[in-house]
Amino acid sequence: MAKIGIADTTFARVNMADFALGIIKKNSRHKIERYTVPGIKDIPIACKLLFEKYKCDIIMAFGMAGPKEIDKQCSHEASLGIQIVQLTEKKHILEVFVHMDEAKKENEIYQIAKNRAEKHALNALALLQSKTALTKFAGTGRRQGKEDEGSIKI
Amino acid sequence: MAKIGIADTTFARVNMADFALGIIKKNSRHKIERYTVPGIKDIPIACKLLFEKYKCDIIMAFGMAGPKEIDKQCSHEASLGIQIVQLTEKKHILEVFVHMDEAKKENEIYQIAKNRAEKHALNALALLQSKTALTKFAGTGRRQGKEDEGSIKI
Amino acid sequence: MAKIGIADTTFARVNMADFALGIIKKNSRHKIERYTVPGIKDIPIACKLLFEKYKCDIIMAFGMAGPKEIDKQCSHEASLGIQIVQLTEKKHILEVFVHMDEAKKENEIYQIAKNRAEKHALNALALLQSKTALTKFAGTGRRQGKEDEGSIKI
Amino acid sequence: MAKIGIADTTFARVNMADFALGIIKKNSRHKIERYTVPGIKDIPIACKLLFEKYKCDIIMAFGMAGPKEIDKQCSHEASLGIQIVQLTEKKHILEVFVHMDEAKKENEIYQIAKNRAEKHALNALALLQSKTALTKFAGTGRRQGKEDEGSIKI
Amino acid sequence: MAKIGIADTTFARVNMADFALGIIKKNSRHKIERYTVPGIKDIPIACKLLFEKYKCDIIMAFGMAGPKEIDKQCSHEASLGIQIVQLTEKKHILEVFVHMDEAKKENEIYQIAKNRAEKHALNALALLQSKTALTKFAGTGRRQGKEDEGSIKI
Repeated sequence: MAKIGIADTTFARVNMADFALGIIKKNSRHKIERYTVPGIKDIPIACKLLFEKYKCDIIMAFGMAGPKEIDKQCSHEASLGIQIVQLTEKKHILEVFVHMDEAKKENEIYQIAKNRAEKHALNALALLQSKTALTKFAGTGRRQGKEDEGSIKI
Repeated sequence: MAKIGIADTTFARVNMADFALGIIKKNSRHKIERYTVPGIKDIPIACKLLFEKYKCDIIMAFGMAGPKEIDKQCSHEASLGIQIVQLTEKKHILEVFVHMDEAKKENEIYQIAKNRAEKHALNALALLQSKTALTKFAGTGRRQGKEDEGSIKI
Repeated sequence: MAKIGIADTTFARVNMADFALGIIKKNSRHKIERYTVPGIKDIPIACKLLFEKYKCDIIMAFGMAGPKEIDKQCSHEASLGIQIVQLTEKKHILEVFVHMDEAKKENEIYQIAKNRAEKHALNALALLQSKTALTKFAGTGRRQGKEDEGSIKI
Repeated sequence: MAKIGIADTTFARVNMADFALGIIKKNSRHKIERYTVPGIKDIPIACKLLFEKYKCDIIMAFGMAGPKEIDKQCSHEASLGIQIVQLTEKKHILEVFVHMDEAKKENEIYQIAKNRAEKHALNALALLQSKTALTKFAGTGRRQGKEDEGSIKI
Repeated sequence: MAKIGIADTTFARVNMADFALGIIKKNSRHKIERYTVPGIKDIPIACKLLFEKYKCDIIMAFGMAGPKEIDKQCSHEASLGIQIVQLTEKKHILEVFVHMDEAKKENEIYQIAKNRAEKHALNALALLQSKTALTKFAGTGRRQGKEDEGSIKI
């Protein structure tokens, strides 16, 4: 049994973490630690603390970014922080970010968020197994948040 | 009792720190250390010193960025510095930045700055409590600087 | 004999790693360690672990990025992570990334991916030899993924 | 007495450092160490060496960037390097950068450079005094390189 | 006598390193270590190894970037890596990069590359002398790759 960290925000408009928790609990007996912060830029430090203080083995980071250019900049800053945390802790963080301009209707954003959270929960479980658990799917065009695109056929 | 660091600038056109200090003093007995620098890019080193020399437990960083593209670049550099400080100090910095193009009228900028400073002061108090103090609001579309957007309803 | 790490993704639509493995096995007796992750942003941590846990001497990192602006941002974050891993591990990572907007037809993307993977496999073998193994080609306009451009003639 | 580092470039078209030195010498008895490099991207390493080898307590970094997009990228790289130096040395670097597109006439660029250099020299002296030496000006819209904007009045 | 590192690429279409080597050999008796890599993003790790394994005192990094937006992103990643290497090694790297959109004709690109390589070779020699060897040219608008612009006259 491993310990999975869950970092999420009050800014997001969908409770993505709950979707992931459903999948994790259904498919494993891993322990959970959750850390909720105001916004996407607070996620890297939450991840750092989930690793160091709460001894998580892997983290899922749930964030939602607004539709504007400045929101992309914010998610970029969060993503770079997440890179640094992973590389100094030597553990995976699966970034589950949704951008509000990925769809026009709120209902679609909700579906993207749910689908992405659930599929990445399965990815987290696979990464906890081994470094080749996903190799059978290498280059197969898998997508989280929408339908898989599949391999290019020639 | 914790010690809250306040980093702010002479560049900003609103004294955001004072709004936050009002909320903090009203709702807690935490100690305060303030550090004022010229501009937004000087904030990360001020935060670093507030943590290391003045032993703060959490920091609120107040900055204002101009309306131009180059100003976005400056705030980006400041934000990346803030990420590095958080991850090396293993403590939260709540970034309370206002961009001068968030509203057209100066009066609106003032209201955004005040609202954002006050709401983030409450976030700072929550983060000092526990990593799940905000979990009840996860995914509920909270905003600082304007009205909450709320959860997506489907 | 050295150990070559292979990091690749389930997001990619071409199994680039297999092309590289063909070249490596044909031209050397180096050992291989493979690590498959969901997407491009998971590559840096996979590389870190390939170096530290699996003792690789050099890594080839295979990723595919979507055609949108936000996809460029993601590949940028992955690339910066790869820079950090190289500089802290003091070993080469050859970044073999394909952007979905490099060609309009899927068939062309496939050819670019294959050509880039194979040529960079040869580059990896050269870098394992010595720091001047490629010096005879310095400034000769070599390209991976398409035809060489050659030196500028004056 | 402290030691103030001066990093500047041969690329700049105005000798900004001399303006700052005039102010510093008039208002203090701090010692000076100067380091001149070719361009803006060489400034971070000059700052690093001014701190480590020449034991400076604070640095003023004078740079000029061209008017093109690629020049903004260069200044961004320099600024990020400056962030890293500050955070690892735990000392301030006041970035005194001028962009050639801040004004159309060369004469205006000259005035901006002079005004910015002189005002930031006073900021450096204030930061050497204490972390609250500038607090009385917090949120008052001070500008370097042009007229102060002042606080927003409501 | 010092040791000058030369990092260059097979991607570049001009053998810039050879121009620099001509100047260095004519004007000094410094030793040379050369490291040739495939592309611009491989330069930072080559520089790291030139410092750590080959004990260079200063490095000239020669790279050429394509004309597209994604090429600017690549050179940006290389430049940030170069910043990190300089700041952790505490030694200068002179970045001698040419962008293929700096001129329309190949012949002009060649001249820019040659001029930039030769002038920066002289800069490297000056930086090896002392931190003030270039101070007499501070603020004089020197350019590498084209004519000097000179100081702004008022």
